[in-house]
Amino acid sequence: MPQFINSKETAVTEAIDGTLRTAGGRLARLDGFPHVKVVVRHDWDRLGVALISGGGSGHEPSHAGFVGQGMLTAAVCGEVFASPSVDAVLAAILTVTGKAGCLLIVKNYTGDRLNFGLAAERARAQGLKVAMVVVDDDVALPDLPQARGVAGTLFVHKIAGALADQGADLETVTHAAQRVIDGVISIGMSLDTCTLPGSPKENRIGPGKAELGLGIHGEAGIEQVDFSTARDAMAMVLERLKPRMGPGPHVALLNNLGGATPLEMAVLAEELLRSPLGPDIRWLVGPAPMMTSLDMQGFSISLLPVPQADETALAAPVAPRAWPGCVAVSDVSVLPLPDGLTPIQPIASKNPARRAFIARCCQVLIDAETELNALDAKSGDGDTGSTLATAARALSGALDRLPLADETQLYRAIGQELSQTMGGSSGVLLAIFFAAAGDASASGKDAIGALGAGLDRIRQVGGAGPGDRTMIDALDPALAALPGGIAPAARAARQGADATAAITRAGAGRASYLPPESLAGHNDPGAEAVARLFEHLAEGPE
Amino acid sequence: MPQFINSKETAVTEAIDGTLRTAGGRLARLDGFPHVKVVVRHDWDRLGVALISGGGSGHEPSHAGFVGQGMLTAAVCGEVFASPSVDAVLAAILTVTGKAGCLLIVKNYTGDRLNFGLAAERARAQGLKVAMVVVDDDVALPDLPQARGVAGTLFVHKIAGALADQGADLETVTHAAQRVIDGVISIGMSLDTCTLPGSPKENRIGPGKAELGLGIHGEAGIEQVDFSTARDAMAMVLERLKPRMGPGPHVALLNNLGGATPLEMAVLAEELLRSPLGPDIRWLVGPAPMMTSLDMQGFSISLLPVPQADETALAAPVAPRAWPGCVAVSDVSVLPLPDGLTPIQPIASKNPARRAFIARCCQVLIDAETELNALDAKSGDGDTGSTLATAARALSGALDRLPLADETQLYRAIGQELSQTMGGSSGVLLAIFFAAAGDASASGKDAIGALGAGLDRIRQVGGAGPGDRTMIDALDPALAALPGGIAPAARAARQGADATAAITRAGAGRASYLPPESLAGHNDPGAEAVARLFEHLAEGPE
Repeated sequence: MPQFINSKETAVTEAIDGTLRTAGGRLARLDGFPHVKVVVRHDWDRLGVALISGGGSGHEPSHAGFVGQGMLTAAVCGEVFASPSVDAVLAAILTVTGKAGCLLIVKNYTGDRLNFGLAAERARAQGLKVAMVVVDDDVALPDLPQARGVAGTLFVHKIAGALADQGADLETVTHAAQRVIDGVISIGMSLDTCTLPGSPKENRIGPGKAELGLGIHGEAGIEQVDFSTARDAMAMVLERLKPRMGPGPHVALLNNLGGATPLEMAVLAEELLRSPLGPDIRWLVGPAPMMTSLDMQGFSISLLPVPQADETALAAPVAPRAWPGCVAVSDVSVLPLPDGLTPIQPIASKNPARRAFIARCCQVLIDAETELNALDAKSGDGDTGSTLATAARALSGALDRLPLADETQLYRAIGQELSQTMGGSSGVLLAIFFAAAGDASASGKDAIGALGAGLDRIRQVGGAGPGDRTMIDALDPALAALPGGIAPAARAARQGADATAAITRAGAGRASYLPPESLAGHNDPGAEAVARLFEHLAEGPE
Repeated sequence: MPQFINSKETAVTEAIDGTLRTAGGRLARLDGFPHVKVVVRHDWDRLGVALISGGGSGHEPSHAGFVGQGMLTAAVCGEVFASPSVDAVLAAILTVTGKAGCLLIVKNYTGDRLNFGLAAERARAQGLKVAMVVVDDDVALPDLPQARGVAGTLFVHKIAGALADQGADLETVTHAAQRVIDGVISIGMSLDTCTLPGSPKENRIGPGKAELGLGIHGEAGIEQVDFSTARDAMAMVLERLKPRMGPGPHVALLNNLGGATPLEMAVLAEELLRSPLGPDIRWLVGPAPMMTSLDMQGFSISLLPVPQADETALAAPVAPRAWPGCVAVSDVSVLPLPDGLTPIQPIASKNPARRAFIARCCQVLIDAETELNALDAKSGDGDTGSTLATAARALSGALDRLPLADETQLYRAIGQELSQTMGGSSGVLLAIFFAAAGDASASGKDAIGALGAGLDRIRQVGGAGPGDRTMIDALDPALAALPGGIAPAARAARQGADATAAITRAGAGRASYLPPESLAGHNDPGAEAVARLFEHLAEGPE
């Protein structure tokens, strides 16, 4: 499974530098790559309580992505899924800790506990005030002696971060962090394990299965379950959380474990909030990737009861962009469809001359059906003639309903009629042509001007111009010549249509996907239809 | 390839409702599911120019995720990779368009152009001012008659959105949108195609290959290339963009096509910014998923020259959380490592009694090496004796360097010595024990108090307590009995150590992964070591 990295040895340091370059100057790192990988706030004055977290990498945007005003002061990054060294943690502590002291927020993995713990001792020996809390929010494996720390850690960063940002002292910040740890519960589910850089993926989860409760390093979970739908998956996750959930309003954190798509995460959000537990979830963080496990196609849910004091802390704005905000969950607001979707039926009116003219045009297209189909068959699917003839027949049948006495309304009505009876792109394009002509007519244009406006509009919408081997190659010169009379317009249309036989590269429409040899030597059927229309009209009234 | 959806028929509507519930009440949708899928700003007053975009779904967070103050007013969503209907677009236009009119931002796909185009005509026939622009930023296939619209569209939403938000009129907004479209270029690269809901993945891209220039619907690209590293991949992408790049500062948008991990995207950001084109890129949007193609493991880059007027528009804050912000690119700031990482070497001093005491303790552990190894072999890898003996030998050899006359400094020095010579968790834990004892001694505690403080600290850091089958089971009762003398302390330690033979479920350390039958009937080797130490000390000075 290839990945967009350069080597597993450099992936973490390069990702950190990429993060630093794109943080708007807010972040810096300590010297000492690759051994010491510490990201710190560049704007930190060491006046308040510093918050330090970290651990193995592979959980991006954790932890460096959450460094910034209102959350972490520093992140100590290990290699992928490996704890950072004591020296690296100590370097972070010594760099950011002032008189107010610092709090280490550590997830419950032995390596992290020990390395952060010893670094804390070393820092204390140098006279610094250092507190440490251990996050163990994963309820997946109730028989595990020590629960793991997973995405619930983000709540600790946020709530402790808000307090520290407001100037609270170390005891208050630590106490709040511990209170969050005592209250938060999490569990994850995944359809696949993760791919370690440079290693093949462990195919532990079989087809049709999902794993419930696996860890953020791909550790095996409680059990493999049959996977059917997002709803069932959510129900299984919530079943594990529900017995441990206390009363009162909760905040949920919906975490993308790395490989789930935004579409899937939005469906999961919907399932979470309309589940039986939905009414107890008053705020949501996410869905977003926050504590990932490389490319794991899964999600985790963390739940925390929210006393009033924490509402403000959760909602406070922060600098790190990786924090997706904590929003109040709302119902789906549904607005009524607007009026005007069903076009007003025009009032039929009479104009014998126009009636005859339209009938004649329709007849021309009906008569040309077979020949235009044959022409189209050489470069397409052979239905141009039938498409036009069907529309022409429908329009002929609608003549009694048309507002024949009102030119503006007539254009619009024809456009409306064509959009309902003609399928495919050509139907929409002709509907646009006549609708635009109607608008132009309404604003005072004469017939030639109105048709010109229609042409302009389909050129814009369809993206085709003269020379692109479309009906425009006949229509454009015909309309240009029309002020001189119908006869020169017909000659121009014919000339334009015949010229398309030499255009071996179509600029728009389905023919643009065809090779030159399929196009050479025969006219574009749309242009041919236009030419025939003008030629018949030039023959004078029947 | 299973996905967290319920069915392909309901995935889009459920994802939309999930998005609405988690938008903090900012968004609403029109009635008419599943045919009409239109997301609108709930706080829209129809006073300014409305911006409407949309197209097929499967590109989340586009398009609904970009609805909100400062960007889109409405998004019209189709099914996955399918254009929305004319009616749906018209419903959006009629709902959000006031006297100032609206701008339709359409990507260059035939279905979108036609359906948005016809809806625009219908709305105009009802007297509304409607403009439309077509985005065609993809430079991947230079021979394609009409370039596709991809992630560069986001720049149009942002810059036109900022102008509309400031009250600019339709002409100004449309002109700015067209100017962005004329300037923006994009191209993508992927290691895999995308998985359509309910369909198997097309395995077009072979192992070791990447595809350059594929479209956001998985359409085939320019060519398949050999994939080696992120750096090479970025170089190939930039090679296609460079010839079309104008002079002056640019903004780059680094888009996750859906399935790349945050780690990979950060590495790609680093490669983009330190590439030869890096100096021309002054601002960056992302890396983030903005215009995805379901789960495609790929990225795209869009480049736009930035005249001064657009700087403000790009930087203006917006409501949609999916917009990751536009940040000024910076160099990597590297801070020097702090002082204090190398512990100050304590000044050696003399205290013959203490020297003898420590030497004797060391000898006890050296003598016990074989027996403790044998005990450990029953429930571990048989090295507890050697680990302790090695540390004891090292400490014996260091006696002349120790600050024997200063109790506080002596604890710290022993901790430091042990952390350097003992491997594994036990070394770190003993180092923490002595460091904490040193701190307690510094704050005035006597020897028993200092050792008690050390015990408390390793309980906190290691997470083990009495009954967890660790050295604490002997150390805890021994220290509790120590005020009564060394003899009762030794008896308590022995009793505690022997009791571990009956603990068949370890609460911490490696033994916690072992089954009860591996633990029953023999003492924990760590607890046994502590008991032997106290017993020998109780025998009185040699």
